[in-house]
Amino acid sequence: MNLDLREYSVRTDLAVESKEIAETAHGGPVPGLNEQVEEQDGIKITRLDVTNEAASRQIGRVQGHYVTLEVPGLRNQDTELQEKVAAAFAKEFTAFLNKIGVGPGAKTLIVGLGNWNVTPDALGPLVVENVMVTRHYFELTPDQVAPGYREVSAIAPGVLGITGIESSEVVQGIVERTRPDLIIAIDALASRSLERVNTTIQVADIGIHPGSGIGNKRRGLTKEILGVPCIAIGVPTVCYASTIVNNVFDLMKSHFNDESDDGNAPTKQIMGMLNDLSESERLGLVKEVLEPLGHDLIVTPKEIDEFIEDVANVIASGLNISLHEAVTPDNVASYTH
Amino acid sequence: MNLDLREYSVRTDLAVESKEIAETAHGGPVPGLNEQVEEQDGIKITRLDVTNEAASRQIGRVQGHYVTLEVPGLRNQDTELQEKVAAAFAKEFTAFLNKIGVGPGAKTLIVGLGNWNVTPDALGPLVVENVMVTRHYFELTPDQVAPGYREVSAIAPGVLGITGIESSEVVQGIVERTRPDLIIAIDALASRSLERVNTTIQVADIGIHPGSGIGNKRRGLTKEILGVPCIAIGVPTVCYASTIVNNVFDLMKSHFNDESDDGNAPTKQIMGMLNDLSESERLGLVKEVLEPLGHDLIVTPKEIDEFIEDVANVIASGLNISLHEAVTPDNVASYTH
Amino acid sequence: MNLDLREYSVRTDLAVESKEIAETAHGGPVPGLNEQVEEQDGIKITRLDVTNEAASRQIGRVQGHYVTLEVPGLRNQDTELQEKVAAAFAKEFTAFLNKIGVGPGAKTLIVGLGNWNVTPDALGPLVVENVMVTRHYFELTPDQVAPGYREVSAIAPGVLGITGIESSEVVQGIVERTRPDLIIAIDALASRSLERVNTTIQVADIGIHPGSGIGNKRRGLTKEILGVPCIAIGVPTVCYASTIVNNVFDLMKSHFNDESDDGNAPTKQIMGMLNDLSESERLGLVKEVLEPLGHDLIVTPKEIDEFIEDVANVIASGLNISLHEAVTPDNVASYTH
Amino acid sequence: MNLDLREYSVRTDLAVESKEIAETAHGGPVPGLNEQVEEQDGIKITRLDVTNEAASRQIGRVQGHYVTLEVPGLRNQDTELQEKVAAAFAKEFTAFLNKIGVGPGAKTLIVGLGNWNVTPDALGPLVVENVMVTRHYFELTPDQVAPGYREVSAIAPGVLGITGIESSEVVQGIVERTRPDLIIAIDALASRSLERVNTTIQVADIGIHPGSGIGNKRRGLTKEILGVPCIAIGVPTVCYASTIVNNVFDLMKSHFNDESDDGNAPTKQIMGMLNDLSESERLGLVKEVLEPLGHDLIVTPKEIDEFIEDVANVIASGLNISLHEAVTPDNVASYTH
Repeated sequence: MNLDLREYSVRTDLAVESKEIAETAHGGPVPGLNEQVEEQDGIKITRLDVTNEAASRQIGRVQGHYVTLEVPGLRNQDTELQEKVAAAFAKEFTAFLNKIGVGPGAKTLIVGLGNWNVTPDALGPLVVENVMVTRHYFELTPDQVAPGYREVSAIAPGVLGITGIESSEVVQGIVERTRPDLIIAIDALASRSLERVNTTIQVADIGIHPGSGIGNKRRGLTKEILGVPCIAIGVPTVCYASTIVNNVFDLMKSHFNDESDDGNAPTKQIMGMLNDLSESERLGLVKEVLEPLGHDLIVTPKEIDEFIEDVANVIASGLNISLHEAVTPDNVASYTH
Repeated sequence: MNLDLREYSVRTDLAVESKEIAETAHGGPVPGLNEQVEEQDGIKITRLDVTNEAASRQIGRVQGHYVTLEVPGLRNQDTELQEKVAAAFAKEFTAFLNKIGVGPGAKTLIVGLGNWNVTPDALGPLVVENVMVTRHYFELTPDQVAPGYREVSAIAPGVLGITGIESSEVVQGIVERTRPDLIIAIDALASRSLERVNTTIQVADIGIHPGSGIGNKRRGLTKEILGVPCIAIGVPTVCYASTIVNNVFDLMKSHFNDESDDGNAPTKQIMGMLNDLSESERLGLVKEVLEPLGHDLIVTPKEIDEFIEDVANVIASGLNISLHEAVTPDNVASYTH
Repeated sequence: MNLDLREYSVRTDLAVESKEIAETAHGGPVPGLNEQVEEQDGIKITRLDVTNEAASRQIGRVQGHYVTLEVPGLRNQDTELQEKVAAAFAKEFTAFLNKIGVGPGAKTLIVGLGNWNVTPDALGPLVVENVMVTRHYFELTPDQVAPGYREVSAIAPGVLGITGIESSEVVQGIVERTRPDLIIAIDALASRSLERVNTTIQVADIGIHPGSGIGNKRRGLTKEILGVPCIAIGVPTVCYASTIVNNVFDLMKSHFNDESDDGNAPTKQIMGMLNDLSESERLGLVKEVLEPLGHDLIVTPKEIDEFIEDVANVIASGLNISLHEAVTPDNVASYTH
Repeated sequence: MNLDLREYSVRTDLAVESKEIAETAHGGPVPGLNEQVEEQDGIKITRLDVTNEAASRQIGRVQGHYVTLEVPGLRNQDTELQEKVAAAFAKEFTAFLNKIGVGPGAKTLIVGLGNWNVTPDALGPLVVENVMVTRHYFELTPDQVAPGYREVSAIAPGVLGITGIESSEVVQGIVERTRPDLIIAIDALASRSLERVNTTIQVADIGIHPGSGIGNKRRGLTKEILGVPCIAIGVPTVCYASTIVNNVFDLMKSHFNDESDDGNAPTKQIMGMLNDLSESERLGLVKEVLEPLGHDLIVTPKEIDEFIEDVANVIASGLNISLHEAVTPDNVASYTH
């Protein structure tokens, strides 16, 4: 389980979060970062391209294309909104496939990372259970497959603590035998911000990168390793206690700054030196205080059981619509379990 | 579901937490509060009696007897420790029954409050499923019941959002028909402190008190209402984001105070006015910042699936040992599911 | 658990099955039995009224109204068919309520009998989880309830082996406190025929009758006991091994009779005396052979997990449509969990 | 799902069942079949070696070693018996490994075949979740692994309907990357006899053989394909309706034969030609009658949820004891989840 925790910490940041930090540090837009933002129906879509090595270094993210859907309403168990998000996700995902040059006939392997016994880590396995697979029809009765479907397979490789085998090893073995043209890996992430937990979906063509911690021999799921494009879909489902605290410091700072304008006590006076620290210095401070006490727990909203099912369904529906021409927002319900 | 949240906020505090706050405010021991602390094998047991109305008012808790077991190791999935805690719980619970005058033959109804579909709220229903019930043997084949067993029944009344009926109404109906001599109600609590989540078990002879919010017509489970003693067993399984933040302020304060002694910057300088606020003022401040943004989520550790099963098993085993003479720490495993 | 088995044997027969047997025995239509059969879209609806005491005695069923929906296709996981069945069920159920004089404003308590840990016995609890409850809105904020909704509450009282309390006692207690005008009790049944398992839904205004076995002190859920009409909805989800065997004898008999017409060996020659026995004599014979060996197990199709979810959803959707004017076949999906 | 059914029919028979049939047909012991039977504590152990090609052909089973544990009491939820069976299984399994020349250091991959969403097919995945895996410790921190442990990994490859990939392809991929010395594959079987369902465990060194039906392209899990020994552990969890019927004919035949000795009507008279048919002719007859009606369902006892957990636990415990010297019947509970 210790190993699992480390895994979370590694896959932490959303690109949109990294960009915010980098811009604050840089004092303005970072060259080489192209961003496009769109908002409709309570769904905010951000398309972010990290186009060169310098930009990559500055935001600490691999070069590539990132799309983020932010939908605060996803926590409200609103079926209608969920259907809209699935349709919007499908549209973005199709555009994303075009952009990175994946053709409509590309055989696809969907990989659901994570542990089905740990609710906030069960996103990947849940998507695998809900997505439509077709590869066996193409293999066993190819002439009977109706047009409008693509060859799709799906696997939930389990976690190291249950299998004793790295997910990446399981996936590599399957890729070598089944030869897909595209990998889509779904994983639960940790967020820097409690408000993004269960409200944000990130798509990126950078695959899953291994942790860099000492002694971490894990291999990732990337184009370099697997030989085919690997798209990662991530949803933050947890965050560290320390990031919650840090969020609040931020919020307090802007809160008091706003109030100061009205003639109240200056923020500096209220928050002392905490006001002057950079975000990462402050986070370091909070971790310094919490960790020796074993208090820097990873937490998840108490409604996680419902949230995780809803977002897994949104992603599975969105993938079904995007991957198969024959599946549309109108008929997707009968394809998704 | 909104209603559920309110319920959590009402049942928030542990008595040991209330006492700490009261003593800080009062600047020393509160008259009328008798406390006895014992620690062994990583299990800290606190027996707290609120003996008069003045003490009750000062700590904001109903007069009565409170026993708390604090076991930080409960989060480590250590089977051996869990067995020790079950035995210790059983011993305390038996002593508690004696203290409040409940005899060994008292017919007992165990009530598991909460929602089995919401993992951190499923403690009560899980205990009900794991506890041994015997009432039907006493009813149907009384002459075949071996000595050493007590008449026990158990019910999980569900939550308002699923049944449309208050738990207390369901329980009252059952009490009127089955006439138990004792009610034991198990419930998940919210804690003021992340470190107590899933590590603390509280037993109290005060029953479950209804919330006092505007429009809250809920009736509680108390001796006054039910006519028989009602013991509440509570385990904090969630906490508010705001309490985590507040915990950290506390920890930072003592952290910097310690460092100040070594000649470093005084805490006041680092933390500004935050240093001078009382705990509840600070909590108010944090809530003021978080709530308008909808960020004061209720959270639970990501390992909640495992934790809740472990602690439900500890309580069910402890109750089985305590309620039935024939069940002992050595044979309890074959009685608990 | 033994007790549970007995319970199954008691609630065994569907009225349409009893009628078939009675007519075979009687050698033609039984006076006092009015039957109306309708078939559409793969759904066979039988409305059977047992109108007098003589008829009741002959078919061994309480006087009352019985409606049965038989849908062999329910086993095919066909979403579209399920929606049709829910709509047909709702229509029948509404007509049934009119027929027995239950008005549109009748406050309703839905009771889900059975054990949620035993998949084929989990029908009742699953319906309770999926049905829409409204009573708490009527109680807490009556002036905010939109028109088109009825006051509905729901409870899954658990089984004797887990609670130590008869379901009927739990329900009586709740009825006394919440005063509904109508009870709807959902229960899994045992069938005489494997082909009816998970394909048949029976509605009857006769409530749930207690077993009559020696020492069985169970009270039922009937109008006499509860003081308000009690409608039972039952779905066969299991059958005895012996009934499967008996079904096959029947099928063999007609199979060989058909073949005999073509000049083959007469059935008598093939099946010996088995050919001459009445159905119940044969069943007795099979039980005589199986029971001493402990082989008369109760069985369920291996796909029970999926079947039970599908049929629970059909019933919950049907009830939501029938009980609330504001819910229609078109919008029911957003009301049912 | 159709494909799944075919899979069941293929893996149907237990070797002990095949032997019975062969001996009946052969009219006595079959040369080349060595059998040893032992019975203790309600556990019947049969060790059967199919030693040559002729014997293999006669019983329709691959040459190899078969061990069967028959424990009717496994259905009684008797914890103590389960512990005894786990210990007996471990002892047999260790002897089995020795017999087939697998050394104590052999790196082992445990494969849990089947579908975790279909209760009677979830045996394999459940064993995988309960078994202790150690491979990651050997890989990541080899010098910290205590003596007494073997390198074990485990995978539940899922079923074709969910993954679109044959289990055997998934396993082959993993075997190629992780290079175990031994495969242990656990699978749910179909039995010829209802009484063996959930009471029998079979171990064989023949691996899992693919079906031979037309168009069945499935590859198996065998030494020939995988390059290392492959032990199959199977438990019958379902049987066909037709086999139940056939069992009853058998039982009736011996029942009436017994009675005939007492001077009653000869069996022939009662059962007609059914008395003269061989078992497989009769089964053919029953299938001929049932199949056109779609009635030859695969069924499972209604208590399958409990049974499958119990037997998965027995197997996982047995494997933990057998594979790791440090694990013993006395401490196994703390190693098995």
